[in-house]
Amino acid sequence: MSTCLGFAAHEAHGALTPIRFERRALRADDVAIDIAYCGVCHSDAHQVHNDWNNTVYPCVPGHEIVGHVTAVGSSVSRFRIGDRVAVGCLVDSCQQCTPCAEHQEQLCSHGPTPTYNGKDRVSGENTLGGYSDHIVVREAFVLRLPERLDPRFAAPLLCAGITVWNPMRRYGVGKGSKVAVVGLGGLGHMAVKLAVALGAEVTVITTSPGKADDARALGANHVLLSNDQQAMLAATNAFEFILDTIPSRHNVNPYLMLLGRDGVMVLVGAIEPLEPIHGGLLMRNNRTLAGSIIGGVQPTQELLDFCAEHQVLPSCEMIGIQDINTAFSRLQTSDVKYRFVIDMTTLRYVTLE
Amino acid sequence: MSTCLGFAAHEAHGALTPIRFERRALRADDVAIDIAYCGVCHSDAHQVHNDWNNTVYPCVPGHEIVGHVTAVGSSVSRFRIGDRVAVGCLVDSCQQCTPCAEHQEQLCSHGPTPTYNGKDRVSGENTLGGYSDHIVVREAFVLRLPERLDPRFAAPLLCAGITVWNPMRRYGVGKGSKVAVVGLGGLGHMAVKLAVALGAEVTVITTSPGKADDARALGANHVLLSNDQQAMLAATNAFEFILDTIPSRHNVNPYLMLLGRDGVMVLVGAIEPLEPIHGGLLMRNNRTLAGSIIGGVQPTQELLDFCAEHQVLPSCEMIGIQDINTAFSRLQTSDVKYRFVIDMTTLRYVTLE
Repeated sequence: MSTCLGFAAHEAHGALTPIRFERRALRADDVAIDIAYCGVCHSDAHQVHNDWNNTVYPCVPGHEIVGHVTAVGSSVSRFRIGDRVAVGCLVDSCQQCTPCAEHQEQLCSHGPTPTYNGKDRVSGENTLGGYSDHIVVREAFVLRLPERLDPRFAAPLLCAGITVWNPMRRYGVGKGSKVAVVGLGGLGHMAVKLAVALGAEVTVITTSPGKADDARALGANHVLLSNDQQAMLAATNAFEFILDTIPSRHNVNPYLMLLGRDGVMVLVGAIEPLEPIHGGLLMRNNRTLAGSIIGGVQPTQELLDFCAEHQVLPSCEMIGIQDINTAFSRLQTSDVKYRFVIDMTTLRYVTLE
Repeated sequence: MSTCLGFAAHEAHGALTPIRFERRALRADDVAIDIAYCGVCHSDAHQVHNDWNNTVYPCVPGHEIVGHVTAVGSSVSRFRIGDRVAVGCLVDSCQQCTPCAEHQEQLCSHGPTPTYNGKDRVSGENTLGGYSDHIVVREAFVLRLPERLDPRFAAPLLCAGITVWNPMRRYGVGKGSKVAVVGLGGLGHMAVKLAVALGAEVTVITTSPGKADDARALGANHVLLSNDQQAMLAATNAFEFILDTIPSRHNVNPYLMLLGRDGVMVLVGAIEPLEPIHGGLLMRNNRTLAGSIIGGVQPTQELLDFCAEHQVLPSCEMIGIQDINTAFSRLQTSDVKYRFVIDMTTLRYVTLE
């Protein structure tokens, strides 16, 4: 056992405050990681606020974790003390089922173990995440941070990045693909950068003209204003792939219209009922609306390696852990370009009452 | 020009009555076809009733056409007088665009020419369909009726058949695939027969216990009652592919729940807004909801050949043309197992006032 300092919510809608808790003693296949950076995901706020009615308190959020190895269990073979590593949304799965064998641990038939607010497969204890100074994770779920990937910017790849990367790979986004990204937040901005790096021709679809310059700065080739009916009409059938990152209920019909023959739109944000979809819009052009949820360990490693090779880095606003409650408030109004990352060394200035 | 006898609607919601009209003189690439049988599709009723606000009257419906060749144009090479042939939903397309080149003439970039209520690409005249004694069709859109396919039962393959066949082929339904078919009408019954012939394990999902025996008689392995909540819950994640043939607004969420990892549900019936879809249901399991609309010439020929080889025949109720208005009424209440086919020789008993 090792004592850990972190930040936790103790009740729904309560502020995050410092907490001291125990991390488990290393099992044979465990890696201990000193956390340098942790990204702030919308899910962190949802979980803290008990929006999904399943939060176990105290809740230590954080599943975009970057750090280095400080100890390894007796059977660990891939990592050594000092290695730069990362951990994403999952810390365990059954490792026996077909989804696990096919690198889709997030869809493990027996349910994967989330990095926080999950149930440890051995002890049954509630998992506690990356808003903390260190973490102990099963080797199979530890990612290698490539040498050329700046650890200060890598954290958002672990959730926002893989969430948009997985469907782009599944549907073959590549050189010359006509891609649109709807919404320009944490997920959307990553999608633009990654699609551009993959060689796609990328259009950002947004309601706000003010975001046009931002979109181009991220590398987008075009900007389409969704409330410009004439421009939307002119873009009918224009895209092969649309990534919809809008995080709340909305009307997808105007975007479906923009899909060409056999085109695919993927939802990665809205975990709630959508406005009614017109069946005829799907039939016309053999269109497809798919959902996608994060990604497995190997695809995440592939993403990290790709980002190192192509120097694709999330746009981050670095904060200290003492600013986390303000950051959560600012998340509600999308007041961040484009992802908060906590410098976890700021924990050393925290005093526990 | 040749004088043709058929049945036409003359106004929205008007009855179909006999009509005499002219078929065009054969162009070099035309085939003249004496019509033996014509299937009755829901679209025929929609078009006659002007449900899509685009009907040109007089309207002669019918796009499930089976007959034999009586004359060919000077450049026709694939057909000879006497050949048994068929015509489906399309009689022309641009033949230049990528969709046409890729055997998706139904998605022709310049718009395909429907068999009825379309605009002839040469003369601009309104096309008139298969509720008639003969038709003149461009060779490229004429299908060969295989020797072993009984012409009395082939007609419904030309629309109902290809509508369900196309998505099953696209998504690789085959030996051992776990397939569900929602709705057991003209499309649904074809889907069951074809999926069974492809080697899939087929479940029919229906609201009515009375249809269980019917479903099994068609070859279905299992029946799932959609209003049996316990059975539906037990079938969560059970299917790789679901074909949804319900022709009107409905709630697809209970069916989406039944899709396993990377599972696909295809809509082929509801050309209208659906009940709100829950985005989270799509994300979980990386589920996909796709639309699909009929199919091109080559896939339709492939279907006819498959049905001949495997002796897959639609279940038809044969009617005389004088019964067509009654048949339209019975369609409204799904009172047919499973597709009306008009014996077009009954036209000879029709007298024109």
